[in-house]
Amino acid sequence: MTTELSADALNGLLERARKDYQDLAGRGLSLNLTRGKPAPEQLDLSEELLSLPAGRHTAADGTDVRNYGGLEGLLELREIFAGVLQVPVGQLLAAGNSSLELMHDSLVHALLSVLPGAESRWVEQERIAFLCPIPGYDRHFALCERFGIEMIPVPMTAEGPDMAVVERLVAEDPAVKGIWCVPKYSNPDGVCYSDETVARLAAMNTAAPDFRIFWDNAYAAHHLTDEPVEIADLLAACADAGNPDRAFVFGSTSKITAAGAGVAFFGSSPANVKWLLANNAKRSIGPDKVNQLRHAMFLRDADGVRTHMERQRALLGPKFEAVARILEAELGGTGLARWTDPKGGYFVTLEVPDGCAKEVVRRAAEAGIVLTPAGATHPYGDDPRDATIRIAPSYPGLEELEQAIEGLAVCVRLVGYEQQAG
Amino acid sequence: MTTELSADALNGLLERARKDYQDLAGRGLSLNLTRGKPAPEQLDLSEELLSLPAGRHTAADGTDVRNYGGLEGLLELREIFAGVLQVPVGQLLAAGNSSLELMHDSLVHALLSVLPGAESRWVEQERIAFLCPIPGYDRHFALCERFGIEMIPVPMTAEGPDMAVVERLVAEDPAVKGIWCVPKYSNPDGVCYSDETVARLAAMNTAAPDFRIFWDNAYAAHHLTDEPVEIADLLAACADAGNPDRAFVFGSTSKITAAGAGVAFFGSSPANVKWLLANNAKRSIGPDKVNQLRHAMFLRDADGVRTHMERQRALLGPKFEAVARILEAELGGTGLARWTDPKGGYFVTLEVPDGCAKEVVRRAAEAGIVLTPAGATHPYGDDPRDATIRIAPSYPGLEELEQAIEGLAVCVRLVGYEQQAG
Repeated sequence: MTTELSADALNGLLERARKDYQDLAGRGLSLNLTRGKPAPEQLDLSEELLSLPAGRHTAADGTDVRNYGGLEGLLELREIFAGVLQVPVGQLLAAGNSSLELMHDSLVHALLSVLPGAESRWVEQERIAFLCPIPGYDRHFALCERFGIEMIPVPMTAEGPDMAVVERLVAEDPAVKGIWCVPKYSNPDGVCYSDETVARLAAMNTAAPDFRIFWDNAYAAHHLTDEPVEIADLLAACADAGNPDRAFVFGSTSKITAAGAGVAFFGSSPANVKWLLANNAKRSIGPDKVNQLRHAMFLRDADGVRTHMERQRALLGPKFEAVARILEAELGGTGLARWTDPKGGYFVTLEVPDGCAKEVVRRAAEAGIVLTPAGATHPYGDDPRDATIRIAPSYPGLEELEQAIEGLAVCVRLVGYEQQAG
Repeated sequence: MTTELSADALNGLLERARKDYQDLAGRGLSLNLTRGKPAPEQLDLSEELLSLPAGRHTAADGTDVRNYGGLEGLLELREIFAGVLQVPVGQLLAAGNSSLELMHDSLVHALLSVLPGAESRWVEQERIAFLCPIPGYDRHFALCERFGIEMIPVPMTAEGPDMAVVERLVAEDPAVKGIWCVPKYSNPDGVCYSDETVARLAAMNTAAPDFRIFWDNAYAAHHLTDEPVEIADLLAACADAGNPDRAFVFGSTSKITAAGAGVAFFGSSPANVKWLLANNAKRSIGPDKVNQLRHAMFLRDADGVRTHMERQRALLGPKFEAVARILEAELGGTGLARWTDPKGGYFVTLEVPDGCAKEVVRRAAEAGIVLTPAGATHPYGDDPRDATIRIAPSYPGLEELEQAIEGLAVCVRLVGYEQQAG
């Protein structure tokens, strides 16, 4: 990314960046770009949820949703999301309010019960490792750390994880039991897995007989353009390749309806679903079916989800456009930064010169702009190049967001030119 | 319980029982007394919940309940239940829809993380055992089985578990890491722990430094008489005895508002709460705060809970009275049965002659009356005396319940007299 500059030119640019930073710091900002939270206006789109299911308390099949039971979740809601998540309705469970919980619990159950195809419980094995395409989602990495699961970074490409690396690692090391994937509009770099990537993930030879793909399809319906991206159907590809039990599919309505008061989903092969249900049956007498009915009534059907997500896009789109516009205006041609232009999802990844990310985040914080910690996109919080910054544009208002991105650009110029000046 | 009968008298009674059973079987009943589920009329009492929080989406402190965050749960709801569950509000968490989940997850975290006071994770230990007062709750036992935790039965007395036995077992065996307790209106025998039992549980010497009391206060507010039972405050007793981290307190609104769409609670010492929150922080970005706000608005305060539970009692009381009345009329003086007369909770325990419980349940099922499997009240489903039957009167309508208890009494006479006749 570097451009050759004369010493004079560099000094001038550094001088201007220092002055701009001084101005920025003097403005007493208090802005937050840390997390992918929906903005209040987005949550307002689901206002109707707050007074549903009103007088109704039976599901389509006559089940009283106010009482115990129904571990697999309400059929009418699973029918709405089967297509969205590319899981046959009979293999899709509707659960609690968080897909992260389902990922956590899937790990717990794999550690403490024998997975279909496994030789023993994971907790009995010397070493367990997961592949972590980077940059990635810090909460996935936190789960691995919490359970002592070793993380092996794998570079991302424009088509998903570098499959040559993935195929080599899973073939040679039986301790590699899983891979984290956010296959559509990935967190944080907005990558959509190509059909070839999906096919190779489904078909690759793994040394571990109980290898699992943790397919966190968090942004399945979260498009930002007129051309919604479709990814290949992983569950079907796994079944076709003779590896039917390889994929765990996760999703939720957290960024569709309400964040924390939505419904999460788990989809997999019949054997895996049976295994999860058997474990869940010990843990729970059933999910909150009232909330599931509420969601089914509000969203109605797959078309209802699409229409609702268009309203979300109308609110989110201008924010992503503002980020792209300001970064281009402030950093375009400087050679100091590259950034993603995602077609969906919740994040923009900003790449700064090696060794600059932490310092940019520190300077921004000092000027009142809080960013996700540099390194959070990498296992153990360690970005070896110290170059990746995750921008979460959804929560702030448009004007605040513009101020924050302008300020961030100032910090990138300051730190970048300081580095070049030595 | 046996009474000496002449051979003739016995033959006459057996004859009549056989005829009554034939009549019963001929009626084609289909009745279910298996589980402690609220009846639809009980759920109707919370109808208002189904259209709350209506237009409101902020908590008392201004938190937007529709967004992520707030792991400890909504303060205003914790304030309502702090007194009910005898936990200081700062040590009480409001969580998801199920206290069983919280018990499961507490075991998981103890297995996979180091508990305050523990030397290692439970999963690293050769053997883990829990004391199980019997009769007890089958779902507690199922959790132990699922995690390979050995269950050691302890007899119940009218004041709670036999504390002499408990004290001996926990003092001599460091593998004994916990005890299951339903301290008020216990499942299934309706026992309320005496103050002395609570004090001894709090103060006893345990060989395990990380011993925990799993205090499942499921029926804290579920009274059936004009004199609500108050039990001693276990958390305070543990703190006073110098064992502040000994108790995990669980509760929920499952049998207050809606079963499966309510809110569950966890209370403990500051150190345990911090430990649970740290583990939960990896698992979740927060509970369903909309449902918590909904509950806080509906129940209002501790008085609101009391008033609501009086309405529940008005529906449940007549069912428990019917059970007592019919059992007395049909089995009183026969020497074939004893039964509990609980002052609250959800169950009646029927004790039949040794060796008869399974056969009574089998005969009842053949006549269309489904009961909780005999043995379910004991670890591994094994009641060594084969004498305990749990009756759950809440769900059926009054008339159905009466038919079912009358039929059950017929089966007790049939099986009991058959046994006496040899």
